[in-house]
Amino acid sequence: MARKLGELARYLGARLVGDADAEVSALATIQGAGPGTLSFVANPKYQAHLDGTRATAVIITEALLPRCPCNALVVDNPYLAYAKVSHLFDRAPKPAPGVHPSAVVDPGARLGTGVHVGPLAVIEAGAEIGDGAVIGAQCFVGADTRIGAGAVLWPNVTIYHGVTVGQRTIIHAGVVVGADGFGFAPSRGKWEKIAQVGGVVIGDDVEIGALTTIDRGAIGDTVIGNGVILDDQVHIAHNVSVGDYTAMAGKAGISGSTTVGKHCLISGMAGLVGHIDICDNVQISGMTVVSRSITEPGVYTSGTGMEPHASWTKNAARFRQLDAMARRLADLEKRLNQLERPAEDAGE
Amino acid sequence: MARKLGELARYLGARLVGDADAEVSALATIQGAGPGTLSFVANPKYQAHLDGTRATAVIITEALLPRCPCNALVVDNPYLAYAKVSHLFDRAPKPAPGVHPSAVVDPGARLGTGVHVGPLAVIEAGAEIGDGAVIGAQCFVGADTRIGAGAVLWPNVTIYHGVTVGQRTIIHAGVVVGADGFGFAPSRGKWEKIAQVGGVVIGDDVEIGALTTIDRGAIGDTVIGNGVILDDQVHIAHNVSVGDYTAMAGKAGISGSTTVGKHCLISGMAGLVGHIDICDNVQISGMTVVSRSITEPGVYTSGTGMEPHASWTKNAARFRQLDAMARRLADLEKRLNQLERPAEDAGE
Amino acid sequence: MARKLGELARYLGARLVGDADAEVSALATIQGAGPGTLSFVANPKYQAHLDGTRATAVIITEALLPRCPCNALVVDNPYLAYAKVSHLFDRAPKPAPGVHPSAVVDPGARLGTGVHVGPLAVIEAGAEIGDGAVIGAQCFVGADTRIGAGAVLWPNVTIYHGVTVGQRTIIHAGVVVGADGFGFAPSRGKWEKIAQVGGVVIGDDVEIGALTTIDRGAIGDTVIGNGVILDDQVHIAHNVSVGDYTAMAGKAGISGSTTVGKHCLISGMAGLVGHIDICDNVQISGMTVVSRSITEPGVYTSGTGMEPHASWTKNAARFRQLDAMARRLADLEKRLNQLERPAEDAGE
Repeated sequence: MARKLGELARYLGARLVGDADAEVSALATIQGAGPGTLSFVANPKYQAHLDGTRATAVIITEALLPRCPCNALVVDNPYLAYAKVSHLFDRAPKPAPGVHPSAVVDPGARLGTGVHVGPLAVIEAGAEIGDGAVIGAQCFVGADTRIGAGAVLWPNVTIYHGVTVGQRTIIHAGVVVGADGFGFAPSRGKWEKIAQVGGVVIGDDVEIGALTTIDRGAIGDTVIGNGVILDDQVHIAHNVSVGDYTAMAGKAGISGSTTVGKHCLISGMAGLVGHIDICDNVQISGMTVVSRSITEPGVYTSGTGMEPHASWTKNAARFRQLDAMARRLADLEKRLNQLERPAEDAGE
Repeated sequence: MARKLGELARYLGARLVGDADAEVSALATIQGAGPGTLSFVANPKYQAHLDGTRATAVIITEALLPRCPCNALVVDNPYLAYAKVSHLFDRAPKPAPGVHPSAVVDPGARLGTGVHVGPLAVIEAGAEIGDGAVIGAQCFVGADTRIGAGAVLWPNVTIYHGVTVGQRTIIHAGVVVGADGFGFAPSRGKWEKIAQVGGVVIGDDVEIGALTTIDRGAIGDTVIGNGVILDDQVHIAHNVSVGDYTAMAGKAGISGSTTVGKHCLISGMAGLVGHIDICDNVQISGMTVVSRSITEPGVYTSGTGMEPHASWTKNAARFRQLDAMARRLADLEKRLNQLERPAEDAGE
Repeated sequence: MARKLGELARYLGARLVGDADAEVSALATIQGAGPGTLSFVANPKYQAHLDGTRATAVIITEALLPRCPCNALVVDNPYLAYAKVSHLFDRAPKPAPGVHPSAVVDPGARLGTGVHVGPLAVIEAGAEIGDGAVIGAQCFVGADTRIGAGAVLWPNVTIYHGVTVGQRTIIHAGVVVGADGFGFAPSRGKWEKIAQVGGVVIGDDVEIGALTTIDRGAIGDTVIGNGVILDDQVHIAHNVSVGDYTAMAGKAGISGSTTVGKHCLISGMAGLVGHIDICDNVQISGMTVVSRSITEPGVYTSGTGMEPHASWTKNAARFRQLDAMARRLADLEKRLNQLERPAEDAGE
């Protein structure tokens, strides 16, 4: 995996200050870097580590060049350059085209050219796998589901029938797409199941983290836009729509029929109730309950701050008295106004 | 999938107002309906869409009939009628009886009549699969586990040994039933594992959403009652008991040995601590921490409401002063009482 | 599974008071025990059940011996003794050594002696499975991953490439270890994926609950210490480090690059933000948001207490006015001071 710096400079469109023939064979953090590694400084708080770095080369901005003790790849956006170059050092196996003999592929499924189907995968009738797609070991692709060209399913992914996955979309292990939404009609104290006859449509260039669930629509589809990134254990309920390039961190969840705009950032463990609309460019803090629609971009939060349990106990007990406290406060103000008035009158 | 309205009216016990020979081939929302579709109006806020609907037929109450522009199936409870009719339009594959040759079924397992075992499923010795049950592709059914007649396991479900699943119960992909509960005895700073020798008993007509976990009991069983519905990513710890017809939404969780009554509604991301009892007919709001037993039916909530982050920051900082504020408030009241007394005395 | 009490006393180093030849064949709770069962009393609140227990034998402390109506195994720590003896009554199947013919094991994988590989498991090239390890049915072990001697993977576990799992570590069904961390560089409104070139290192004697996710590092490894216990549906993000013997309950999560010390207890649904450090011996309450580093051992909490929804609604509305209330309170204090001063002056 050794790469010459000259090659990397060309790949990144970077200005190389140093030895074009020097080689790096791994990535490293700026503080942990050793000889033969390539590092980067993107966050100002790590600049102090640049002086003493033992990296063979670093990706930095022009501004940091004077204090750089080693070869430098100079770019405008080091973090983005690091993202691009990182793939050259990835040791993840690259599955070769071909269908493993232990896979169970229905004769009625259509596979594009260069498709990889791993061992013990199941592909049902009517499914279409786009050119160059990777269906990992032990994956399940249901009837009539379409997987886009260049998409990658890591092992053990389950995609139900009638789902569409876009091109180059990456789905991590254990993800379940297209299970029934949580739809039941109450009937004399029991629950009457509603068939979930919609599907799921996932856009291009999406990434879905391990063990995330995206349920199929009750009527019509659940929709994940292009370029959306979902972390692990996210839950997307039926008929939700997530706008392009929105990011959701670990364990966040969206209830049924809610619409989230584009370019939103939903932090970990945040939960959105059903049937609301969130506009573009909204940011939700961690573990926030989003209980109503949001029509203005900005950052939104609920909850309280962490504190030592002993003081928390006292404050939380007072929270239950908060409305009473507010009324007592208003009463005090009224009485104090009354008391002050004679004094003011007297002052006239 | 085309159905004549006369047929549907008979199926639902509905009064048909319109053309018995008209056909519908899909379901649609009232606002998205087109020719050839069947829709419904259950929620009053969608009534406005009825006037202009392009559906071929709608399921409505008698009261809405005067403004209905198309064929109508008149019932008392349109949402329940829609639930019942929805299954006629479900495109989910119906697995045929038979054991796929790639499945690994132990000779010591007993399969009822009409059972479907999908490709690459594993069924261990002593397991019993009831008549007409569906064991999806790549499922695992452990030793001595019993799956009830007509139950459906979607692909990739893992059921450990010694579990009982009731009749007609539906389990979605990725669910794990019967993993060890989280039981450890502290021992000189380390954890000594406690064997979880109990099992799991799941009732009839239960539905379990994708990637939900139900752990086996430490001693005795974890119990899920009849007709319980669990959404995706729910967690049920060891020796929990969930009463009949209780519903739990996405990502809710119950800690060990807690008992939940019948007909409860536990909203998404709510969490119940261990060793408490919740009576029947309790409703828990989303992301609420249930930290003590509940003995009265009703709705219970914790947390704070969402607000813009800037104002939240100020209010959350004050939460940490709340007990101090309450004491200052009481002090003010005392002092004001003192100040007012002379004035009152003077007024006598 | 019948065991004589004399045998159990020797196994536990307990003092037997009663019949050494009496047999027990199952464990039971003290209140649910019947003839032929072994029970224990560890929690004082269950002592009352000792008097009437129908157990054949109980594990108790010396102090409880006078009121014990049956055979007794007397120890200093009954809960720990119960933990040790519980494994003798475990009915979980013990997989025999051997590779099931349906498993797909790459010729380039190395298996130790006495290894069990279950049906339909996949083991990729370069993987190493330690002596006596159990790879359950339908598991996936990626390229170059090492599984320690005596480790147990229950069915359907997915371990990506380049992961290290320690000795005797137990991993429950559906767990995903080594999926990509959530690392993306923003680029003109889109997300540029960062290859996650690090790995995961899991220590010895760890237990990982069902459907937990542990992501691989971006650069360098995600690390789980020795003796750590993780419950179901826990999420560990990239480059997190969890110290030895720390316990995390169901659905807790840790964001990227955060370090948690040794002997911590993180309760269910708690969430830690990224890039913080938690010292040893910290306890986090359920559903708490840990938003900053913790440098002192102790218990930490956020949130509010549960209450009936009607009162919660009023109090939560006041939370949004809390900063204003605090300022009104300070204003009242100032004005009251003003009013009181003349009176005090007058009193001089």
